[in-house]
Amino acid sequence: MPDVPVSLALMMDRDAVAAFLDEVFPQIHHGGPGPVVESVGPMTATMRLPYHERHLRPGGTLSGPAMMGLADVALYVAILAQIGPVALAVTTNLSFNFMRKPAQTDLLADARLLKLGRSLAVGEVLIRSAGQEDLVCHATGTYALPPR
Amino acid sequence: MPDVPVSLALMMDRDAVAAFLDEVFPQIHHGGPGPVVESVGPMTATMRLPYHERHLRPGGTLSGPAMMGLADVALYVAILAQIGPVALAVTTNLSFNFMRKPAQTDLLADARLLKLGRSLAVGEVLIRSAGQEDLVCHATGTYALPPR
Amino acid sequence: MPDVPVSLALMMDRDAVAAFLDEVFPQIHHGGPGPVVESVGPMTATMRLPYHERHLRPGGTLSGPAMMGLADVALYVAILAQIGPVALAVTTNLSFNFMRKPAQTDLLADARLLKLGRSLAVGEVLIRSAGQEDLVCHATGTYALPPR
Amino acid sequence: MPDVPVSLALMMDRDAVAAFLDEVFPQIHHGGPGPVVESVGPMTATMRLPYHERHLRPGGTLSGPAMMGLADVALYVAILAQIGPVALAVTTNLSFNFMRKPAQTDLLADARLLKLGRSLAVGEVLIRSAGQEDLVCHATGTYALPPR
Repeated sequence: MPDVPVSLALMMDRDAVAAFLDEVFPQIHHGGPGPVVESVGPMTATMRLPYHERHLRPGGTLSGPAMMGLADVALYVAILAQIGPVALAVTTNLSFNFMRKPAQTDLLADARLLKLGRSLAVGEVLIRSAGQEDLVCHATGTYALPPR
Repeated sequence: MPDVPVSLALMMDRDAVAAFLDEVFPQIHHGGPGPVVESVGPMTATMRLPYHERHLRPGGTLSGPAMMGLADVALYVAILAQIGPVALAVTTNLSFNFMRKPAQTDLLADARLLKLGRSLAVGEVLIRSAGQEDLVCHATGTYALPPR
Repeated sequence: MPDVPVSLALMMDRDAVAAFLDEVFPQIHHGGPGPVVESVGPMTATMRLPYHERHLRPGGTLSGPAMMGLADVALYVAILAQIGPVALAVTTNLSFNFMRKPAQTDLLADARLLKLGRSLAVGEVLIRSAGQEDLVCHATGTYALPPR
Repeated sequence: MPDVPVSLALMMDRDAVAAFLDEVFPQIHHGGPGPVVESVGPMTATMRLPYHERHLRPGGTLSGPAMMGLADVALYVAILAQIGPVALAVTTNLSFNFMRKPAQTDLLADARLLKLGRSLAVGEVLIRSAGQEDLVCHATGTYALPPR
């Protein structure tokens, strides 16, 4: 399938987005390391959630909220990289399909914006266990964007 | 709208479900008090998430993952109460509409099963800030049930 | 569960909404009778889709698009009744859980708005076969509202 | 993002799937031409919905049910191509984000299976107006698969 066409230059690079996240969302590291920005690109972002025992669940799998929070922040980062820190996006809808149990390792989330309109952004996220090809979760999200 | 008809007796009461949750999911209390079973009924469950600073986000609101995890566990509890602890349900789909920012107080989640079939359960959850009528979040969830 | 609180008076009654629908969406009756407005109320609407062979599918069930279109128009009607015909709502998100195969009879859709904000409306729809209690489909929808 | 890995050979090619669809779902052509199978591949299918005035809506756009039905059949075709006609898939969940109004032309749907398990298939669909790059709709779907 062809990629989504992008005509926008990035407003923030990886380091700028990461610094902004740590400043406004210090809580995502509560109780252990939180999601890390691996890279940002045109309409995309990749985030890593380092493995930590607080995400562990019975049967050696990772918690749903850990995956769901990772997907949300990955889309948020993709939006930030495009529109900059001046305008905050508000999550209005998130949908998840859980496909396999994640392994006891880091999670990687590849986010891609499917639409970045004036007042609405829509994107999807593919989550995998680090080093594995199979998807553990697919997410879609919708964000309300303030006037900018 | 008429209620969903129910012909099943409960397999577990509130105390039995709460004890089971604490036994198999001790992690939901990691870093502070986790969700509490308020009540269970035919095809329903009500859960409370006690307010805790680890759920706090900028602007004085509560985190998305806190709400999403609460919705998931509320549906799981409603299923457990109906089918008992013998069979574990696996979340396959969760969908959220976020409608208002929650207040800095407890969250209450009213879960209701819309279908409890042989291999699939479907339900919805309405989440409010304690003491308020307006919804902060509506969720739907789908669960795969093992043979029983 | 307590009902959603409503402080808004209706801008259009059943007959007004039905007349408006027929005027702006004559195509919903293409090839046979389309959805009929049964009633509107505060934040609610009930629609009926008369049985017609064009909705029939193998195994004696009704088509998914017939149910999905019915859910969409039911939420749209609930919004129209509240805000009047001056502002058109645009569907931005629809989510469906299909629970049972519908019978070869009319479909009834009970729509309820969960939020009616300045720029966004969110609602849910319960679809049943006429004369039956079990749900065949549950839908949630999100609508962008123009300035008004 | 890397493609979903596929280890399965196709059970049906384009012509076989198209013939099967026409045989079991003649109703999709009711009132005018229905969706056409353009191609199938490993875990993928592309469908075209020929433009027809019965899909037209006010403002020169195409109906939501036309898009939703197209997404559903595209995922169904991708599943059929993989597992063959012996086992029927039942749609359990569909989620749509509508991003732009489609033009008055054919619609193209690119479906991709994200998971094809023993009892559950999950996939996504990207819908565009023919000849245009921008997405008009993104859909995800879940299907229950009978024992095979």
